[in-house]
Amino acid sequence: MEVVKTITEVRSLVKSAREQGKTIGLVPTMGALHVGHISLIERSVRDGCFTVVSIFVNPTQFTPGEDFEKYPRSLNTDLKICKDNKVDLVFVPTAEEVYGKEMLTWVNVEKLTEPLCGKFRPGHFRGVTTICAKLFNIVIPDVAYFGQKDAQQAIVIKKMVADLNMPLEIIACPTVREPNGLAVSSRNQYLSPDERKDAACLYNALQRCEQMAKSGITHTPQLIAEMRKIIEAAPTVKQIDYIEIVDTHSLQPLEKITDKALLALAVKIGATRLIDNILIDTTS
Amino acid sequence: MEVVKTITEVRSLVKSAREQGKTIGLVPTMGALHVGHISLIERSVRDGCFTVVSIFVNPTQFTPGEDFEKYPRSLNTDLKICKDNKVDLVFVPTAEEVYGKEMLTWVNVEKLTEPLCGKFRPGHFRGVTTICAKLFNIVIPDVAYFGQKDAQQAIVIKKMVADLNMPLEIIACPTVREPNGLAVSSRNQYLSPDERKDAACLYNALQRCEQMAKSGITHTPQLIAEMRKIIEAAPTVKQIDYIEIVDTHSLQPLEKITDKALLALAVKIGATRLIDNILIDTTS
Repeated sequence: MEVVKTITEVRSLVKSAREQGKTIGLVPTMGALHVGHISLIERSVRDGCFTVVSIFVNPTQFTPGEDFEKYPRSLNTDLKICKDNKVDLVFVPTAEEVYGKEMLTWVNVEKLTEPLCGKFRPGHFRGVTTICAKLFNIVIPDVAYFGQKDAQQAIVIKKMVADLNMPLEIIACPTVREPNGLAVSSRNQYLSPDERKDAACLYNALQRCEQMAKSGITHTPQLIAEMRKIIEAAPTVKQIDYIEIVDTHSLQPLEKITDKALLALAVKIGATRLIDNILIDTTS
Repeated sequence: MEVVKTITEVRSLVKSAREQGKTIGLVPTMGALHVGHISLIERSVRDGCFTVVSIFVNPTQFTPGEDFEKYPRSLNTDLKICKDNKVDLVFVPTAEEVYGKEMLTWVNVEKLTEPLCGKFRPGHFRGVTTICAKLFNIVIPDVAYFGQKDAQQAIVIKKMVADLNMPLEIIACPTVREPNGLAVSSRNQYLSPDERKDAACLYNALQRCEQMAKSGITHTPQLIAEMRKIIEAAPTVKQIDYIEIVDTHSLQPLEKITDKALLALAVKIGATRLIDNILIDTTS
């Protein structure tokens, strides 16, 4: 496994791999790797890719007041995880290497970045799409792997790739969960034992909503009220940013579930903001 | 020479050329090809490239009230010019092929798109950078050729390519001029014989400014006043959008010319808006 810090090195190593006829798979991460990231790496390796993992805590996707400074960083552990999981190349750039002296160019996806987390994290998705555009141009992967846990992010990136005709495929992989249902996230490290226990309420609420919808209760205000009740019952829940039931393509709120829907929520448990979601289909 | 309308065909033909070890050169155009475009094609062919010309009158770079509808279209002549000049592949897509059903993603370069033409054509450069990003992702060229006549465009595109780490080189080629000095442009077709004669004032003014600057007159307000005087003396000059002397990197106005400078102007001659510029260096 190679570990490199510069764009030039990445390009040269990827070029060699491509000349050997290999397909290039990219797993973009902010480090603090966990079983969710490992599932993406495993998928890339299983797909037979020359697997590139980028580790970069991207400052432009944090909004002022968020946890950029204290975001968990654990490079040595991350590199061990990469090596154990057969990663071929790890790209660990500095912010200077990525953004240079004066960054003036931004990629923005309209509409899809406005609801859900877009309302609460202004500029976040612009930071995400821009860093992904850069990483795609640096690594030039055939496939990039993202977690379905960040559902809106996956949808926004797929739209960017389609709209700008970027020559790669985006694969969104299933959310990995802890035994109590909590979606695995680097930010789960922030939770106290009580908070982690309470955080199970998020997936419980999503599952309850799916059950109800499949049993024929399709009017979304009623479903949302039920999810809210379940979540508010957890003692350490501090604030609900949103609980929404939206169209899986437009991300616009649905009044009624007729077939597919994305159930998505963002909730502060103690001081930690967690997101979760499930895709449901009441016809299947 | 192949002429194709779809992205799939472009990708497949470029892929074959690349597999034969060829370098890919792209000349993006809006058609109405003239000796300026031909100079770009010749450069690409001379550089040994598999030369791709795109012909697409890009609606998103015209602002409301501009000449999108009446912009000159001459596909048959354009294809003959391409063939005569050894182009390998011409891409002539429809707007639907390029933009699909719902385009939500835009690439924006800040700051550099605000002065000069940016002030008078809101959204123009966003349209230019986005279509170029798309064409670069469709064709995946090693080099793309632009005219120095659109100086701000060339600077903006170079910045986009650098900022987003796009894996290609941008080459800006010298402005081609008619015998009277008028910069060749598809929009010159709009000019009456009198207007075309008068339009020589633009290059005359730029040259006079260079002479003065090289003779030691470096205070820009005086230089701009002199250019204005020359241009206003032409009877069919209707309106001066701007005459500016700016830094060649930041495009911000200079108070004094110390070495390099971009002299740039946009002037309406009759109903036709023309732009022109020269790069000067008083130290050489």
